Amino acid sequence: MTATAYRRLEERFRRIAMLRDIDGLLHWDMSTMMPVGAAAARAEQMAALKVLCHEILTDPEMGDLLDAAEGQDGLDPWQQANLAEMRRQRRHASAVDAALTEALAKATSACEMQWRESRATRDFESVRPLLQTVLDLTVRSAEAKAEVLGVSPFDALMDSFEPGVGEVEVDRMFAPLIGALPGLLARIMERQKAAPPVPLQGPFPAARQRELCVRFMGALGFDFARGRLDASLHPFCGGAAGDVRLTTRYDENDFTKSLMGVLHETGHALYEQGLPAQWRYQPVGRVHSMAIHESQSLLIEMQVCRGLEFLTFAAPAIAAAFGGTGPAWSAENLYRHYTRVSPGAIRVDADEATYPLHVLLRYRLEKALLSGDLGLADLPGAWNDGMKRLLGIAPAHDGEGCLQDIHWFDGAWGYFPSYTLGAMAAAQLFEAAAGAVLWREPPDTHGVRNVGNTRFRNRLVEFKV
Amino acid sequence: MTATAYRRLEERFRRIAMLRDIDGLLHWDMSTMMPVGAAAARAEQMAALKVLCHEILTDPEMGDLLDAAEGQDGLDPWQQANLAEMRRQRRHASAVDAALTEALAKATSACEMQWRESRATRDFESVRPLLQTVLDLTVRSAEAKAEVLGVSPFDALMDSFEPGVGEVEVDRMFAPLIGALPGLLARIMERQKAAPPVPLQGPFPAARQRELCVRFMGALGFDFARGRLDASLHPFCGGAAGDVRLTTRYDENDFTKSLMGVLHETGHALYEQGLPAQWRYQPVGRVHSMAIHESQSLLIEMQVCRGLEFLTFAAPAIAAAFGGTGPAWSAENLYRHYTRVSPGAIRVDADEATYPLHVLLRYRLEKALLSGDLGLADLPGAWNDGMKRLLGIAPAHDGEGCLQDIHWFDGAWGYFPSYTLGAMAAAQLFEAAAGAVLWREPPDTHGVRNVGNTRFRNRLVEFKV
Repeated sequence: MTATAYRRLEERFRRIAMLRDIDGLLHWDMSTMMPVGAAAARAEQMAALKVLCHEILTDPEMGDLLDAAEGQDGLDPWQQANLAEMRRQRRHASAVDAALTEALAKATSACEMQWRESRATRDFESVRPLLQTVLDLTVRSAEAKAEVLGVSPFDALMDSFEPGVGEVEVDRMFAPLIGALPGLLARIMERQKAAPPVPLQGPFPAARQRELCVRFMGALGFDFARGRLDASLHPFCGGAAGDVRLTTRYDENDFTKSLMGVLHETGHALYEQGLPAQWRYQPVGRVHSMAIHESQSLLIEMQVCRGLEFLTFAAPAIAAAFGGTGPAWSAENLYRHYTRVSPGAIRVDADEATYPLHVLLRYRLEKALLSGDLGLADLPGAWNDGMKRLLGIAPAHDGEGCLQDIHWFDGAWGYFPSYTLGAMAAAQLFEAAAGAVLWREPPDTHGVRNVGNTRFRNRLVEFKV
Repeated sequence: MTATAYRRLEERFRRIAMLRDIDGLLHWDMSTMMPVGAAAARAEQMAALKVLCHEILTDPEMGDLLDAAEGQDGLDPWQQANLAEMRRQRRHASAVDAALTEALAKATSACEMQWRESRATRDFESVRPLLQTVLDLTVRSAEAKAEVLGVSPFDALMDSFEPGVGEVEVDRMFAPLIGALPGLLARIMERQKAAPPVPLQGPFPAARQRELCVRFMGALGFDFARGRLDASLHPFCGGAAGDVRLTTRYDENDFTKSLMGVLHETGHALYEQGLPAQWRYQPVGRVHSMAIHESQSLLIEMQVCRGLEFLTFAAPAIAAAFGGTGPAWSAENLYRHYTRVSPGAIRVDADEATYPLHVLLRYRLEKALLSGDLGLADLPGAWNDGMKRLLGIAPAHDGEGCLQDIHWFDGAWGYFPSYTLGAMAAAQLFEAAAGAVLWREPPDTHGVRNVGNTRFRNRLVEFKV
């Protein structure tokens, strides 16, 4: 009887997982393939899927099944964890009604489509009314969830991405970083003056950049039989379980961005492709914390691929792809490019040292917008002021200011802290891994690898100050 | 109260339409973009959508709503027609249970994926077991529907594509065609000996072919803001309402096939893009008869684009695309190519005069397979015998024999007659349209246009013998 309850829950969540996978594929298509005039139809389709999931989650019978299954003996630890995750999803879904769910889904689709155009034309005002709708509905949803979860509205939003983590934890973890970064930044920039990188001469044809990306994705273990690489306005890793789809954007004057961007998304993809196949369609086998997901992309990007070891492996292929010769194309020079610290306007292109300041700006602004302390009309100004204060940068226009990121426009409020939590986790994971390798290998075989690990460790410790 | 019943039905069918549109997009993706290792996951996703639609259609409450709405006064003719179509869909769905619906969906996905490989390797045996499963499940489904609809199993299958049309009507309409075609074919082939087309020298780069296709799609009125053109193994027109996606395949030794194939699919697309927008998500506003759908593709392909008027318009662009000069690239020579009658192995490349014989072969074979008179093991032989008898052709291998069409492998049993019914409808529509133009224009403005119409009329009358 109770065994049946758990199994019936698994069937229902299997259906939810299918619908979410389909939603992921439609979102990928929307970002890469969809003709622009199909946006309204697509918004309806995706809203229909979200409402269906919401109906399944809020069905009263599911409450009975959860009660029955929770009283059941004999579930193994995976099943117990699965059940806890089911309960959590139901709690989130039940807090908001179907009408709000549908309205939010449609509003975010419409806003995201307008954002694409507004970003290209650098015109915040053209998307502001749609963003206001998204914000208003997000506030309503956050307040409803806050009441059910017994936390603040902002923590209720964060809870979707980082279960159990809220403002208090974020502030506690961010504080030492924020205190140390300005001084550290100054020291790094002073030190790197001694050896500036030799410029790389373009142009770098997009097709060649793509070939290189595909090659290194394969080298890192990406399975192309279960995934793809395409182009989109905002890079992401999406798709579905067993069908992981990455995107990037190509700048023919600078290959370093698309290449490292793809390696970042490859980190996400390896995590997805590595999830336990037998739990693929159950909550316990899918992403639980976005910080952990981001830790995998940053482990690959920041810890592995920006390192001298990887670049030593990669440099010959990079030079060959663009017909480059001479010292500019050496691993050492690429390493100088890829570890260069330099405050810039764009978060996704930021180096490891300035990245947390981009996150901090967004974290502060989204809290102010959600609480009503800041109005959307004042967002561009507040953004630019914050950039100046935190990074000494004045964005040239809103396209590289408050329009640069997709998150708020597509409804991902409360997501930004996960990036920096993920960076911290990545650094710790890599340090532990490097330590384990050092410990395992006999001293006389260290050679270059040992040097590398030691260097990495020093670099990590430095940035963790 | 009854007004509410009709509106509530509209809401439910709106959801079904969304799920079917999503299914159409997933099928397009499966045929054009999906990594091969994602096939099993995709089969699950598409089966989940079909089971969801089945659940909505067979929900007992929907029966009550239909009863209530049917007793309702004040519905306008569109609403009444919509209601009748709703009832028809429920009748089809209720005949088969959810388990069979799911099994059939999964079996066709698996079989279609294997078919792609088997077709490429020309190996019927490698797909036969999966096709057997599809066939067995199709027979079960047909028998269940036959009982509910009070028709034969084959007519029950055809009823999904051509409501109310069955074997008796098909045989009656096909009989004069079958009687007249052999003699007509002989006469055409004798007559065309006098002026054989000048060969067109390749190669014809796929990218150029595509540009040309895009250009003529636009000229015919295809809206690229609400559609796309891509490449796939088997050409089709799919996607979703408001997002119509065509595919073709390119042969670099022969551009005439991809070009006319795309114009054919454009005819389908124009029908889809021209459906009444306000009924987009209701049964009455979606395709009702596949013969009518095919009539639109054949109107564009066979009646318009293979005509001398269109080719006079198209010839300069075609010649420019491939750098062609001289008499081979004249409209007259292209017209000779595009109206040439020549028995061949491939249905989708067939001319107007031999096409019905391809359909006849498939219609006879599918009936024999469904009734059990023919076993799948004997299909390749029966196919080749039939080709020899009807068209005097011996396929070189099963890739251009019984493996050439996707239909049986993806579950579209009973579909083939719609092609020839559509060809008949197209010829009649064009004749009526040409007659209306002749009647409306004063005699002194006829000129070339009159000549063209008269020629078209003669051609149509000839092929309708």
